[in-house]
Amino acid sequence: MNTELLVVGSVAFDTIHTPTGKADDALGGSATYFSIAASHFVTPSLVAVVGTDFGPEHMNVLEKHTTDMKGLEIAEGETFRWGGRYLPDMAGRETLFTHLNVFESFVPKVPEEYCSPKTLFLANIDPVLQTQVLDHVKQTEFVACDTMNFWIEGPRREAILGLLPRLSCLIINDEESMLLTGLTNPIEAGPAIQKMGPNTVIIKKGPHGLILFHEDDIFALPAVPLSNVVDPTGAGDTFAGGFMGYITAKGSFDGETLRAATIVGTLMASFCVQGFGIERLVAMTPAELKEQYSRFLTCTTQPEIDLA
Amino acid sequence: MNTELLVVGSVAFDTIHTPTGKADDALGGSATYFSIAASHFVTPSLVAVVGTDFGPEHMNVLEKHTTDMKGLEIAEGETFRWGGRYLPDMAGRETLFTHLNVFESFVPKVPEEYCSPKTLFLANIDPVLQTQVLDHVKQTEFVACDTMNFWIEGPRREAILGLLPRLSCLIINDEESMLLTGLTNPIEAGPAIQKMGPNTVIIKKGPHGLILFHEDDIFALPAVPLSNVVDPTGAGDTFAGGFMGYITAKGSFDGETLRAATIVGTLMASFCVQGFGIERLVAMTPAELKEQYSRFLTCTTQPEIDLA
Repeated sequence: MNTELLVVGSVAFDTIHTPTGKADDALGGSATYFSIAASHFVTPSLVAVVGTDFGPEHMNVLEKHTTDMKGLEIAEGETFRWGGRYLPDMAGRETLFTHLNVFESFVPKVPEEYCSPKTLFLANIDPVLQTQVLDHVKQTEFVACDTMNFWIEGPRREAILGLLPRLSCLIINDEESMLLTGLTNPIEAGPAIQKMGPNTVIIKKGPHGLILFHEDDIFALPAVPLSNVVDPTGAGDTFAGGFMGYITAKGSFDGETLRAATIVGTLMASFCVQGFGIERLVAMTPAELKEQYSRFLTCTTQPEIDLA
Repeated sequence: MNTELLVVGSVAFDTIHTPTGKADDALGGSATYFSIAASHFVTPSLVAVVGTDFGPEHMNVLEKHTTDMKGLEIAEGETFRWGGRYLPDMAGRETLFTHLNVFESFVPKVPEEYCSPKTLFLANIDPVLQTQVLDHVKQTEFVACDTMNFWIEGPRREAILGLLPRLSCLIINDEESMLLTGLTNPIEAGPAIQKMGPNTVIIKKGPHGLILFHEDDIFALPAVPLSNVVDPTGAGDTFAGGFMGYITAKGSFDGETLRAATIVGTLMASFCVQGFGIERLVAMTPAELKEQYSRFLTCTTQPEIDLA
């Protein structure tokens, strides 16, 4: 059987400080959050690297949410570690440390069995590596990619610009869309990025929701109203996992399905931020997801207005 | 006939600098924007003050959108003038000057005919004056109020806290909701403000839409996606005018009508920001409003998702 959904990204240990608590060396990384979220809809295959300090309890989490461990390289050394502190408003955050460790020399090796996935997600890693992965993949129907300010502002801008025409979809946040286009208004930035390549662009605005641009269509979606945001870490990758998992399961990439998938991603992300690290996300049940959807509909359904 | 909708606020001349242009001494002020927007649904009555420099061309604008000029005081001196410059992202702005002029000694006088309005909007003026207006009004079914950081942070905080239990609805932006409650998350701030008095709270988030809190109900609404934002001045007052105009015309203040009214206000505000000052708003036709609503529905309608 062909791989359904392939994700290439990071697996990490995160140290997270928030105004209300702290987590040390919690299992994280873009590919981890993505896989857990996607696994509610399909079983993703993972390409990533960890160090020899990656214990069986962590391995179990990845095994539970992915097809197999063929794409997980275990390299001599320590797993990628990141530490960050959220500001009181939970929107901004400062990076306390970044220890790339085994990630520094990571060259993604895509196992033969993963080379023709139905869909592919290039989580945030060096755009040069994202390009190499894309070169290795023989055939796929939908390629989405995430990136970050570090790459856009730095020496990898050209690599990103080279990657964009090969993507079906770019998923970034509003700050990144500004850095990429120079346009502060996401409604202008989205179409500008489409002109750089991808037919579909999703601009995430954290607690303010997102804007989906697909061909000439614009879709504005609020976030789930939440009073108990505990830790925003991984929300973007969780969104991407729900989004990609849903369209992969549907096997359809039309505008209606993409819109629906942004709702699914939004719901998944709402669970992610309600706990430290992956804790709330892994505990989420299908019944809870349905209940959250029902609540979201209640909070966003517009009554008809009478302009007679 | 009783007054339907009474607004007390400012009439001003605004000097506006944006990244793309400049307007000098353009007719503005909270009561002006409010009245123009509200007049699409009911004819509001206005209580405000202008100076002897307020020309017939400006008077005509107010006359056209309000019941009569009984509440417009013409005082010796110059009309209130404000100047501001928007930052390149159009979100932040700096005040260049504030000349209160005749507004400095303004004491709102509510004509006898206006003392039992169906609904009342206290636009952003000194909370002590807002309280005096409320004292003068004999009977009304729905009172909404706007305020700003200047009053919340300054010596009028107590006056605002005294006013809140007398309001049906407070309409403020996210920054102001934080100043009032100390809570950075609007989803927490909204209910906290409800506990201070008003049954209904609307927290505006500019281009990110708004959150309506009504009793236990939460309604999240995106803004109209706009690529051509020319001048955000007056958008909040225009929103309030559309909102209050709609519920006054409906004569209903239940949750469903309030939700609908936030959509109407959002649509009206989308016209306001597409021109300098009031120019685009006054030119708006009912057909254009319907067309904008149709576009908004296209941009925000959620497809069903399949979580089976």
